[in-house]
Amino acid sequence: MRLDGDDRRAQLLALGRATFSERSYDEVSIEELARAAGISKGLLYHYFPTKRDLYVAGLRATADELVERTTTVGQGQAPIDRVRAGLDAFLDHVSAHAPAFIALMRGGVGSDPEIAAVVQGARDRLLERILSNAGATPLGASVTARPIFRIALSGWLGAVEAASIDWLTRRDCPREHVRELLVQLLLATLVAIGAPTSVLR
Amino acid sequence: MRLDGDDRRAQLLALGRATFSERSYDEVSIEELARAAGISKGLLYHYFPTKRDLYVAGLRATADELVERTTTVGQGQAPIDRVRAGLDAFLDHVSAHAPAFIALMRGGVGSDPEIAAVVQGARDRLLERILSNAGATPLGASVTARPIFRIALSGWLGAVEAASIDWLTRRDCPREHVRELLVQLLLATLVAIGAPTSVLR
Repeated sequence: MRLDGDDRRAQLLALGRATFSERSYDEVSIEELARAAGISKGLLYHYFPTKRDLYVAGLRATADELVERTTTVGQGQAPIDRVRAGLDAFLDHVSAHAPAFIALMRGGVGSDPEIAAVVQGARDRLLERILSNAGATPLGASVTARPIFRIALSGWLGAVEAASIDWLTRRDCPREHVRELLVQLLLATLVAIGAPTSVLR
Repeated sequence: MRLDGDDRRAQLLALGRATFSERSYDEVSIEELARAAGISKGLLYHYFPTKRDLYVAGLRATADELVERTTTVGQGQAPIDRVRAGLDAFLDHVSAHAPAFIALMRGGVGSDPEIAAVVQGARDRLLERILSNAGATPLGASVTARPIFRIALSGWLGAVEAASIDWLTRRDCPREHVRELLVQLLLATLVAIGAPTSVLR
């Protein structure tokens, strides 16, 4: 099949994302990807000079999708229900890409500065959106602008990541229990920094 | 100065740890380390075949020290005070090695599976000790053996890491506020999974 440049790039990106989400980075070869796309290795290299370039481009697209999904669901609902919906979206997403997510977060892909920057960029945007959503609640900017508020939410995001990795590694607990744990932890985080939790209800 | 094998190895390890804790991995060269130790590059390579080997050996020693310090302080005190003392030890430790800690946790050292394994090993041992300390409280094994308890504590450890990194990156908040936030989060974690927090007091 002949495709023009943009379509071909999109096809390869989609193929790379699907492949890397199912198997580990080291297991996947450029030969195999070219074969699956029905093109030569040379043409694949034209779009993505190295396997890592394709991986990083796919990771970036996946991270964008994750940030978008988790922060736009539940609009118009009460803040606590938005949080719940966002966590559901997050847990669904990482659950659907569990081996890739665990490998990524635990350095199994041989993390480099570029990969680390994609992960940190996603964290920063998530945090920014959560802070901005919180600033729009009756909490107001006077609470959300305090350093301890940002540190507390960074911590909560760390808890979300770590609890997800543990859960996905063993799968010995229903997803809903993990989600409710994380909702309760967010409420507790707000209490710990002296913010009234009533704003979330 | 002539040293026998074990002493020489210990000297080089101490030198490597001190150097890598102050500057980034890429900035440090084997030439410079050999010069500082007053030995040839060849002799340094005899003990540590690559710069990465020296780095990983140092990281392992530092991780052991961190686990040991944070889990043995405050013995004989009330559980909540042990937690507080452990967090103080943790925050002191990462604060004293802040650039190295941030680079390590954020992939800035070009994380590889061996480095990831050292970090994950330290997390696992910390978690195991915290679980075992909790099992010795009136909470008892029936609570601490539940998967959600382990997931919740993994999450809390993730919060400790992420909050520490945020705090060390900006230093715009007193250390005691971060420590108390994390103490309160642990209490909240216990409440969230239905454990009575009275056992910690």
